[in-house]
Amino acid sequence: MSDVATSNARQLPAVLAHVDAGLDASLDRLFALLRIRSISADGAFADDCRRAARHLADEIAALGFAAEVRPTAGLPAIVATLPDRSAAAPHVLFYGHYDVQPVDPLELWRRPPFDPVIVDDPAGHKIIVARGAQDDKGQLMTFVEACRAWKEVTGALPLNVTILLEGEEEIGSKNFGPFLSAHKKDLAADYVLVCDTGMWDRQTPAITTSLRGLLYEEVRIKAANRDLHSGIYGGGAQNPIRILTRILGGLHDDDGRIAIPGFYDGVADLPPEILAQWSQLGLTPETFLKPIGLAIPAGEKGRLLIEQVSSRPTCDINGIVGGYTGEGSKTVIPAEASAKVSFRLVQGQDPERIRAAFRDFVSVRVPSDCKVEFIDHAAAPAIALDWQMKPLVAAKQALTEEWGKEAVLIGSGASIPIVADFKRTLGLDTVLIGFGLDDDNIHSPNEKYDLRSFHKGIRSWVRILAALAEAPKG
Amino acid sequence: MSDVATSNARQLPAVLAHVDAGLDASLDRLFALLRIRSISADGAFADDCRRAARHLADEIAALGFAAEVRPTAGLPAIVATLPDRSAAAPHVLFYGHYDVQPVDPLELWRRPPFDPVIVDDPAGHKIIVARGAQDDKGQLMTFVEACRAWKEVTGALPLNVTILLEGEEEIGSKNFGPFLSAHKKDLAADYVLVCDTGMWDRQTPAITTSLRGLLYEEVRIKAANRDLHSGIYGGGAQNPIRILTRILGGLHDDDGRIAIPGFYDGVADLPPEILAQWSQLGLTPETFLKPIGLAIPAGEKGRLLIEQVSSRPTCDINGIVGGYTGEGSKTVIPAEASAKVSFRLVQGQDPERIRAAFRDFVSVRVPSDCKVEFIDHAAAPAIALDWQMKPLVAAKQALTEEWGKEAVLIGSGASIPIVADFKRTLGLDTVLIGFGLDDDNIHSPNEKYDLRSFHKGIRSWVRILAALAEAPKG
Repeated sequence: MSDVATSNARQLPAVLAHVDAGLDASLDRLFALLRIRSISADGAFADDCRRAARHLADEIAALGFAAEVRPTAGLPAIVATLPDRSAAAPHVLFYGHYDVQPVDPLELWRRPPFDPVIVDDPAGHKIIVARGAQDDKGQLMTFVEACRAWKEVTGALPLNVTILLEGEEEIGSKNFGPFLSAHKKDLAADYVLVCDTGMWDRQTPAITTSLRGLLYEEVRIKAANRDLHSGIYGGGAQNPIRILTRILGGLHDDDGRIAIPGFYDGVADLPPEILAQWSQLGLTPETFLKPIGLAIPAGEKGRLLIEQVSSRPTCDINGIVGGYTGEGSKTVIPAEASAKVSFRLVQGQDPERIRAAFRDFVSVRVPSDCKVEFIDHAAAPAIALDWQMKPLVAAKQALTEEWGKEAVLIGSGASIPIVADFKRTLGLDTVLIGFGLDDDNIHSPNEKYDLRSFHKGIRSWVRILAALAEAPKG
Repeated sequence: MSDVATSNARQLPAVLAHVDAGLDASLDRLFALLRIRSISADGAFADDCRRAARHLADEIAALGFAAEVRPTAGLPAIVATLPDRSAAAPHVLFYGHYDVQPVDPLELWRRPPFDPVIVDDPAGHKIIVARGAQDDKGQLMTFVEACRAWKEVTGALPLNVTILLEGEEEIGSKNFGPFLSAHKKDLAADYVLVCDTGMWDRQTPAITTSLRGLLYEEVRIKAANRDLHSGIYGGGAQNPIRILTRILGGLHDDDGRIAIPGFYDGVADLPPEILAQWSQLGLTPETFLKPIGLAIPAGEKGRLLIEQVSSRPTCDINGIVGGYTGEGSKTVIPAEASAKVSFRLVQGQDPERIRAAFRDFVSVRVPSDCKVEFIDHAAAPAIALDWQMKPLVAAKQALTEEWGKEAVLIGSGASIPIVADFKRTLGLDTVLIGFGLDDDNIHSPNEKYDLRSFHKGIRSWVRILAALAEAPKG
């Protein structure tokens, strides 16, 4: 053990104690961030997003970082570097995002989404309720607060840290790849840390080693040049909702497989040993679907539920709208109808090929006197990480020590497109660690983050930073 | 010819001249009515609906009617009777509705929908633009203004008139049948006149002798107990939009026929002579679909376009909504999705049987861990009237004289459910005459009524009232 490592290990108890003592102040800082309505999907909140970026840059600058809000082609990013670096210590690039999902349907929130509170859930757990409480403001603040604790107790961090926060993760990070290219020099590091994933369950910490990719398309069908009266035109004029539902209703076959030609090209089955390991994890309809009021796995017939939600590609219609949707009835044939359709992709699927196949599937089904338009919202391939990577092994040990239970390596059904960008643009591998729980309602009304996730999340990063300072750089 | 009839015929030119001279004042009164936002489908406008009823009752009372606003289980109706009746003259019951359709999508209106104006259309026709300009405020005011002209010139109407106006036609007239039953005595008449239909074309007046029925259902599919993140749950949890689009996408088969078992039971083909007559009317894709930007008849294969839109039953999805429909993207699996679905029915179809068959069709396709709810918005059978009815023949002659072109008897694809109620409850036949044109954009943005329709509509009713005074009572 080097002197520095010995010193870090010696100081660890004091830093952890400082986290415990300062939890209320940490929560105050989190709440200030949660009050900012940084919804990236809706242009009406662009100023709020910029305010969130400014706010975070100021918080991080107070820790001794040179923190800058930098423009992208969309919402700004934050790059924060430590002026004094130790050449011997590893250099980590921490990534998080300050933008949040829209809040609709607003009427289903039990409290205003941007007025955070701590309440007891029905099982007696203390939870922080607000949009972004978990995804990703709560999670990114676990890292920032861990840095703060090291800094306040020891005057320095155990290793070199660059913090990189973006504001367009929830809308596909489309401007982030070019931003990485443009700021490559300032983002040099040994590897990336991302805090935007979950625990396996309430007791078991986890590191995520695979992520599904994402293709997100919007389809708009246009028929007549104006809305029509269904009594006068019904039966004679094309109805764009009829066209759209017929196309979308045909995206899955009777076995729950996606019916787009070529969709499964290149998709491999899980290796038998992984499948055997996953089938032991206890992800059943009873544990996974019952809490959300469902009972029957909806995916491909003949696949385990855990395959359906993490290793198999899927298609979901995330939104649809057309015609009269208000109270009561209106006998209208609308001029247009549209839907948002997304695909979770796995290893072997090329998002651009899937996009082309999807657009073909739709286009050939649109009558020749109608029109179809597509909007590209996101396209990112799936990611698989090396389970043997040294920093990952070190972080796993630190997590295990904090939670008193062996940390597991898991695959996630979700997508974090920038992980591919880090590899492609910066040449860096990523270690994904987070403290979310399945019932956190992210992207839904009443999003929450367990107070324990926040508190022990900060403590976990305190330990991980010390562990990574000692681990080989890659 | 009786003395009265002779007197009516002698006074006709003066009454018509009075209509011409008073057109500006008639328009002022129409505009005052059009400014009232009497949207029946949205409870937020209930006060406006009641204001429209009060306003019209006052207008009609000023003509010497005993006009009362009477409550129904929903929005109020108006019953207006003439105190002095001639036992010799026929007694007509005029029906119209003061409620209008919702105005969305508001952004497609070139002018505020409740701020009526007269402008030139691209072809140089003067048009009255406003929600309700035609359906039905403009149309019902042609009758009221015709009564006014007779009253102002001769001090009386040529025959006995009761005026009955309702406020829930656009939402299915559900409370109107019971209202008719309850006020049967006050509504005694020889037959009904309805002004809520159209001309055959700009030159050719028409009387509508058949109407399609209407069944209007709302379907709501409920899956998980909350909105879900499609990355975490995608592939494993049911998506209600997927269920809904799959069901709705299966409502029509590849030949455009409706796939609900039993849907066509009892539906007869048109008699060959009617089919031959209709095929001469020149309703082609070029004349009917091209003006609305379409080219290919969307209905059942092997049927004439005029059959598709007037004698065949149809199904349209009038609205659909679920998930995220705002700007940008959101990777959500919503908890529920819903659609409004309507059927135009023809002779031989029982709305209640079709409703049951539709609900079965949907219910068996909903996974057992999801729920479906239905809302009944309307159910009315189709109507076919006697082409030989004496008042109809007399009215046809009067229309022919006003327009200088033989009036035609036509079938309408639209539904006016109360016509069945008049027969069932009051035992009365109905003569349907109106001055709408196919391009009036009723139920759509930029609804209009040709100034010529309004002006010659009033003149037509002036003539029809005189003609009916001389015609046998049934």
